[in-house]
Amino acid sequence: MNEWIINSIGTISTPWKSIDNMPIQPLGAEAVKGTIKIFDEYLAGLAALEGFSHITLLYKLHKITDYELTVIPFMDKSPKGIFATRSPKRPNAIGISTVELLKIEGNLLHFSGADMLNGTPLLDIKPFFEKFDNRFNTRQGWLEGRDENDIRKTKSDDRFKM
Amino acid sequence: MNEWIINSIGTISTPWKSIDNMPIQPLGAEAVKGTIKIFDEYLAGLAALEGFSHITLLYKLHKITDYELTVIPFMDKSPKGIFATRSPKRPNAIGISTVELLKIEGNLLHFSGADMLNGTPLLDIKPFFEKFDNRFNTRQGWLEGRDENDIRKTKSDDRFKM
Repeated sequence: MNEWIINSIGTISTPWKSIDNMPIQPLGAEAVKGTIKIFDEYLAGLAALEGFSHITLLYKLHKITDYELTVIPFMDKSPKGIFATRSPKRPNAIGISTVELLKIEGNLLHFSGADMLNGTPLLDIKPFFEKFDNRFNTRQGWLEGRDENDIRKTKSDDRFKM
Repeated sequence: MNEWIINSIGTISTPWKSIDNMPIQPLGAEAVKGTIKIFDEYLAGLAALEGFSHITLLYKLHKITDYELTVIPFMDKSPKGIFATRSPKRPNAIGISTVELLKIEGNLLHFSGADMLNGTPLLDIKPFFEKFDNRFNTRQGWLEGRDENDIRKTKSDDRFKM
């Protein structure tokens, strides 16, 4: 049995009502604030989270209804395999974003770095730990030579609209 | 409708047949090699992946059958909310590991940094891009002051065995 049923643990609210002009990464959305409402039944799972300045969100790319194995990503002009990109039309449309946690009020998490659509179903939160999670001296394939400014400037368009 | 059905895209093979003594993070498993067999139908999605030295794997923590909202994590002695830890008994038991991609041979990916069980179902691969993905000057809550050596030394035990 290869299928697996998962349920969301909360809902993410952001200013992005459609993907047009949406930032493609948290780096391009540093000033963009969002909130997460955690469903009551999972509230106890937030204990001790506020000590972390950064958290990694796993969420459902909920507007994606099918996938393409080859895509032209936002930061390039030639086709790439979907797994060599962050493009959303993936076989399992799970997004990850490491964002800055600003404050927790009850079941409401305030964060900045919102690069996902309003209404996105949240699947998991993991604390970000610099010493676990950063990597250095990496090779970055077709992204080699691109820098933070390219990412900040690049906005989504309608190519992955369903 | 809050449920979502997902299918794995491949299977991860590692030396870890049970969680006893398994490393708790890729950092503790730098020398541990694993392979991923991608199912044939997703093979085209690997194009251009080999240029990346590091990839982030999303996978199902397939031995986990329920969750606990409060856990005592491996690197501490007092209870924490599950979302403030990387412990596996999560509401949606999805694991993430950023590993070093060594070689791709057809539908077989060779990597090092294997910190997951043998037979783990793979859900997604994302290319790791240092300039997107590293974060600095973070606060790390209850993990403050722990360093790479703590992580390297800490092995799993049977507390999350099902």
